[in-house]
Amino acid sequence: MKRYRNGEIWDFEQEMPVRIGSKNVILGLDGGTTTTVCICIPFSSDHQNTTLPADDRPPVLARAVAGCSNHNSVGETAARETLERVMADALFKSGSTRSSVRAVCLAVSGVDHPNDQQRLFNWLRDIFPHYVRLFVQNDAVAALASGTMGKLHGCVLIAGTGTIAYGFTEDGREARAAGAGPVLGDWGSGYGIAARALTAIVKAHDGRGSLTMLTSSILGLLDLSSPDELIGWTYADPSWARIAALVPVVVSCAEAGDLVANQILVDSVQELASSVKAVVQRLSLCGEDGKGCFPLVMVGGVLETNRDWDIGEEVMKCISKDYPGVRSIRPKVEPAVGAALLAWNFLTKDSYAEGYRN
Amino acid sequence: MKRYRNGEIWDFEQEMPVRIGSKNVILGLDGGTTTTVCICIPFSSDHQNTTLPADDRPPVLARAVAGCSNHNSVGETAARETLERVMADALFKSGSTRSSVRAVCLAVSGVDHPNDQQRLFNWLRDIFPHYVRLFVQNDAVAALASGTMGKLHGCVLIAGTGTIAYGFTEDGREARAAGAGPVLGDWGSGYGIAARALTAIVKAHDGRGSLTMLTSSILGLLDLSSPDELIGWTYADPSWARIAALVPVVVSCAEAGDLVANQILVDSVQELASSVKAVVQRLSLCGEDGKGCFPLVMVGGVLETNRDWDIGEEVMKCISKDYPGVRSIRPKVEPAVGAALLAWNFLTKDSYAEGYRN
Repeated sequence: MKRYRNGEIWDFEQEMPVRIGSKNVILGLDGGTTTTVCICIPFSSDHQNTTLPADDRPPVLARAVAGCSNHNSVGETAARETLERVMADALFKSGSTRSSVRAVCLAVSGVDHPNDQQRLFNWLRDIFPHYVRLFVQNDAVAALASGTMGKLHGCVLIAGTGTIAYGFTEDGREARAAGAGPVLGDWGSGYGIAARALTAIVKAHDGRGSLTMLTSSILGLLDLSSPDELIGWTYADPSWARIAALVPVVVSCAEAGDLVANQILVDSVQELASSVKAVVQRLSLCGEDGKGCFPLVMVGGVLETNRDWDIGEEVMKCISKDYPGVRSIRPKVEPAVGAALLAWNFLTKDSYAEGYRN
Repeated sequence: MKRYRNGEIWDFEQEMPVRIGSKNVILGLDGGTTTTVCICIPFSSDHQNTTLPADDRPPVLARAVAGCSNHNSVGETAARETLERVMADALFKSGSTRSSVRAVCLAVSGVDHPNDQQRLFNWLRDIFPHYVRLFVQNDAVAALASGTMGKLHGCVLIAGTGTIAYGFTEDGREARAAGAGPVLGDWGSGYGIAARALTAIVKAHDGRGSLTMLTSSILGLLDLSSPDELIGWTYADPSWARIAALVPVVVSCAEAGDLVANQILVDSVQELASSVKAVVQRLSLCGEDGKGCFPLVMVGGVLETNRDWDIGEEVMKCISKDYPGVRSIRPKVEPAVGAALLAWNFLTKDSYAEGYRN
């Protein structure tokens, strides 16, 4: 087992009393660009070869929270240190050590390529005992599992600061769409919606676009006196989440009848629906006749507004037209629990799902 | 006069031999996001109350080059140090000191608001003797002056890594459009064109968009084996210029008949033309009947391709439809010379042009 360079991350294990017959546990980790959550659930060998029923919420022994673990945002060294610390923290809080761990599922944003998976897998391999089963996925997979209670089937649409659609078939094929960040066209995301609203203000100001209520609403919120000052505000801090936080203002303006804001939301709905449709089509999730049922797990702030202008509902309407068998699911547990349930399912049955595992 | 903190920037002045009747000079500075150029031209009092003829190229005593001086990109401290060093370098090379300077025109990208102008003006005031006339402008103004040989009239369209349209009337009114960076909708820029090309590759790959020749051309150039690897490539280095450098590939694909690449260029032409039209309309540059003549200075790599698919020519066609009096100018001197000519004109006549000057 790996000893951390500075020795301190796993030091707690040496202070831990040795308990005979101590519980086996599973770690589920959801690593995002804003927050990383690790949860620890018990795993009893009595459950082997069974799966949790779909309405069962597993007991959570411990929950630990940390910051960004996307290597594209903070670099590989910082991302790994965050991941390692949050796993150690969850184990410490649950009164366990690495020798009690049966499986770890790491679902991290920025895992976009088999190379990313392989690198994280090799790194995890050095941290845990050889008998621990390890799984590395994109964080969208944990979000899907949080809606399907660990079953890898159907599609998930995440629309928060960023957006991605990810799908799995029952026979283990997978596909994704979007999730490439704002430079690479994630225009349906919270960042995309807000950036288009800021652009609309600039265009109204310089004569390229129609006047819009967004100008007074957003400048007022940001305490700026002129659209020219938006440039300084925008580039003073490159954080995508800071821009995405303006989405509720865009929704309010659209609800108040502003045509520019309304068009931005309509376009965002089209973009989000197009990501889901691309995944459904590539995987034939709706069967040969196009009418088969499949779950669509909807996650993220943009889809959870529950306002008059409900982006999530409009996305569902748009998808239902082409695929009437779509069934929307709003998860009852958080994605880190989804990651733990995935690991549970990988452990207890001969799983077909993709992912690096030993 | 300001002594630099570390004393070294202006140290050369103490070593300079005192020359009786040494030449008066003007500094013209063009500060961009990639490069900053400062040139030094002679100014003789014989020329007072005269302007340079439009076809005259002023003699350049010295030219100095440095990196980025946009405070939005590198911060105010670094931007100012670059500006001060490049001015000192130009003076040193011309064998002059600050006491020979009659006027300085600083035209810097990122000067988007009167506050930006005022801050730079106050800072310049501390560097030069009190009798030196100082002018601070957005760098687009120097580009306009480089085409009109120092006359502030007409419109300039810059489309390189970024894009901006800037115009002045003969009676001193001014207007701008775009120039707000990629987050705020500068989609006609080199960055905008290339980012849309990268997006098209991702969309073709995940099923949201049509197949395109851009995929093999750009992945080949970047030595990547899959569109998934574009995500890592894109976010590994946030430099806009690095992305914008892909524009020639997009033009080549469009010339070879690729519909996706062609549409990206067509949209870019619309965006660029819309910036110019917004400025022309707000300033009534084409007169009351819409047929008046005005110069349009065209600057920047995107407009200078001179290929089969000529973006600059298409932009001109698009503008000519609405404003038949538009006359295109490709500058014969660089923008830093334009900045110096501006300062010359400010000095030799009662100029009406905007800008902070003493």
